[in-house]
Amino acid sequence: MARMAEAEHGHPLFRQVHDYLMNRIERGEWRPHDKLPSIRLLAEELQVHRLTVFKAYRTLVDCGKVYVKDKSGYYVSPGRGDAEVADEGAAVATYSLTNALSDIQRLPVNYQFSQALIDPGLLPNLFLSDYVKKVFDLYPKVLGTYSSVQGDVELRETLSRHFRRQHRLQLTPEELVITSGAQQAINLIADIVLGPMDAVLVERPTYSVALDIFRRAGARLVPVNITPEGYDLEEVEALMRRYRPRMFYMNPTHHNPTGVTVPAAQRKQMVELAERYRCLLVEDDPFRDMYFGAAPPPPFFAYDTEGWVVYISSFSKYVAPGLRICAVACRHPFAERLITAKSLADNGTPLLNQKIFLHYYTSPRLQQHLEKLRIALQVHKEIAEEELAGRGWEWTAPQGGLNLWVKLPETVSVDRLFARCLEESIAFVPGAICDPLGEMTSWMRLSYSFASEQVLRAGIRRLTELAREM
Amino acid sequence: MARMAEAEHGHPLFRQVHDYLMNRIERGEWRPHDKLPSIRLLAEELQVHRLTVFKAYRTLVDCGKVYVKDKSGYYVSPGRGDAEVADEGAAVATYSLTNALSDIQRLPVNYQFSQALIDPGLLPNLFLSDYVKKVFDLYPKVLGTYSSVQGDVELRETLSRHFRRQHRLQLTPEELVITSGAQQAINLIADIVLGPMDAVLVERPTYSVALDIFRRAGARLVPVNITPEGYDLEEVEALMRRYRPRMFYMNPTHHNPTGVTVPAAQRKQMVELAERYRCLLVEDDPFRDMYFGAAPPPPFFAYDTEGWVVYISSFSKYVAPGLRICAVACRHPFAERLITAKSLADNGTPLLNQKIFLHYYTSPRLQQHLEKLRIALQVHKEIAEEELAGRGWEWTAPQGGLNLWVKLPETVSVDRLFARCLEESIAFVPGAICDPLGEMTSWMRLSYSFASEQVLRAGIRRLTELAREM
Repeated sequence: MARMAEAEHGHPLFRQVHDYLMNRIERGEWRPHDKLPSIRLLAEELQVHRLTVFKAYRTLVDCGKVYVKDKSGYYVSPGRGDAEVADEGAAVATYSLTNALSDIQRLPVNYQFSQALIDPGLLPNLFLSDYVKKVFDLYPKVLGTYSSVQGDVELRETLSRHFRRQHRLQLTPEELVITSGAQQAINLIADIVLGPMDAVLVERPTYSVALDIFRRAGARLVPVNITPEGYDLEEVEALMRRYRPRMFYMNPTHHNPTGVTVPAAQRKQMVELAERYRCLLVEDDPFRDMYFGAAPPPPFFAYDTEGWVVYISSFSKYVAPGLRICAVACRHPFAERLITAKSLADNGTPLLNQKIFLHYYTSPRLQQHLEKLRIALQVHKEIAEEELAGRGWEWTAPQGGLNLWVKLPETVSVDRLFARCLEESIAFVPGAICDPLGEMTSWMRLSYSFASEQVLRAGIRRLTELAREM
Repeated sequence: MARMAEAEHGHPLFRQVHDYLMNRIERGEWRPHDKLPSIRLLAEELQVHRLTVFKAYRTLVDCGKVYVKDKSGYYVSPGRGDAEVADEGAAVATYSLTNALSDIQRLPVNYQFSQALIDPGLLPNLFLSDYVKKVFDLYPKVLGTYSSVQGDVELRETLSRHFRRQHRLQLTPEELVITSGAQQAINLIADIVLGPMDAVLVERPTYSVALDIFRRAGARLVPVNITPEGYDLEEVEALMRRYRPRMFYMNPTHHNPTGVTVPAAQRKQMVELAERYRCLLVEDDPFRDMYFGAAPPPPFFAYDTEGWVVYISSFSKYVAPGLRICAVACRHPFAERLITAKSLADNGTPLLNQKIFLHYYTSPRLQQHLEKLRIALQVHKEIAEEELAGRGWEWTAPQGGLNLWVKLPETVSVDRLFARCLEESIAFVPGAICDPLGEMTSWMRLSYSFASEQVLRAGIRRLTELAREM
């Protein structure tokens, strides 16, 4: 006869029993006024002591989820269960499984301004394809070979050299972990760092999928305003003192969605704050090389000496986005935990993708490609700005990146505009999604990088016409 | 001034406050006899009502984590905190972040018998490489293009046709989700299905990484014995009735690690049990085509009409394992939830990998390759069996797959043998890791598929010598 794995242990597994009951009520498996299992039955089913079940029920009674009748029976409280959970979902969105941005991006439209991706037509496809074929000759068994979980050592050596040279980062190959895109990195880091009710600092506005990932972990979102001047460091310190956040998810260079860059002068101070308040800075840096004027200041990671910055460098976004290669720089013992999380998540990023990236990345062609890409993106940005100009709409001129963060007059409802645009096959990101508070309802994120020049001009022109008609 | 995202809501966020406090105590941030923050302070920090904090503290006092002194102060209980958690960790291993198998596989050894992978030398590498180059000509922008989150539609159409033809599965392309390997599929499914204290049925023995994934989710592991006769269906029904498991993670065809196949007669009955007890069957099927005698019976999924089976078909394992392509067949609305989980995890498997897989998979070469591979694996298996024979060691002759599940005489300690083998650069998987109860200390899993014939023979011979010396 099989036994429960923990059956031999008589510990009051109070927390788990409590969470188990709460879960089933929240899922609606037990409905309001349903009678719950007796203490005896449940203790037997879960193989725990009756006192443990009794305490769990008592706690649920205390917080109003469950009520007692006839001195013996426990019942699901009316109204509260569902209503309260729904409200909490809207506010803290605790444990919710949603991805608002992905839902938008999956809508098939002709004018796609919701994707912060680069038009595949701007990439050197023919060169890439020819170049890549060489990889199969160099590594004839690449399709049959697993990568190490941490990532291909040749790639990590090359990247650590690059980071040392380009940003003067002190970095060994052992301090790099390869993930499948920046998003996987954010997800794994959240899994490691965030527990229920942990506070996490997030920029306002920010990348909405990160918010959805943190909500899934049950974390509390604490917003930090970001402006062309960067952060208000006094505000950040006050928030760190008050909420003791476990991490600050930041995108400080050509920020998504605003395009602003946190000034160099603030970077060192912020790292000092992180050290003082033991708050991990998770620096997401996908847009570093996509600048229009001067190159941006060094990453926060460059100022870190005590391991309080994790650096997510996903430059495959402009090299070959289809490969989904991202490098995470972090110190031990964090790197060890990241490797374990990665090993559970997918056991390693495909070797083929890493080798292709490595060889393209080290080719002289990359620099030429980057220069062309910067010019092309600037042209795209200017087309979008031309079409938006003179309508009373506001935006900060981005220093780089792929997006315009646009504020519409109060008279226009962005939600209604969004619905109207979809009818005409135009998609953008309503600003409320990018706001941890779910406000910013007059804003929208327009990505100018994905559509071709012609489509971009026609689509934004139509979008502004639709807004005027409203 | 920024506000907490949930600050406007006065709900008693009891559960989150409780989990938050518990978490910090478990992490050791507050040590035994530390004074905890006052109710007033904590309510302010978390922006919740004081009554909520009061109730959370009261619950922690009830379960012995916290004690009260001087009628006003809350303190961390001595001894319990750490000791209890450590014991619970060993038993339920709740929320632990470990991957025992990955830790073993990352040890560099010359005789690698811990990897259930195929020797890259057995794959048609030259053919693959030449073939793959065509993919770049067919899809010149493949390196610059993201896949849809659900997976490339051309691949899903091809695979659904294949499943319909080969196994007579009723399946549309909309019911397939592409993941990066079977392990990602298991991880995403666990994320969707399992909450704390939920019971999950697992075979005994089974694939250890699945156990580590379920432990990370805080689930209870309920073992189901698997033998050459399959399952004891009466036992399974009793377990389903008793524990109401949310899912049964199964690997019923050329089972890892035993190599047995659950008979066709049991498959339909098991699906009926799943329907009756509302227990999702998660059918992991990576070894289906690697048989030595007759082809195995159809998947459980073929008998499912009500959506109680999720079918993980990771045949890239023998086509081109380096690509990490896996197809999950499941019904709506489960498929929708899987797509959302995938969108948070990594936003989609790289398109390149899907296209390469698609084109190799549809080539006539695949069948030839498969036939050769079956013969090669059988030769490997026989070499391993020859070297193990005549020593009083026992194993079930596998009907397929990549492993031998070997029982040593009681006189040999597998743990000590493992340590001794590592000194001689030989790795295998100690059986206890594959056992949800952590027992089976006389067993080992020997993978015969990864090492070349010469290395396999020499390594197993040496392993048996080391055992004899002990």
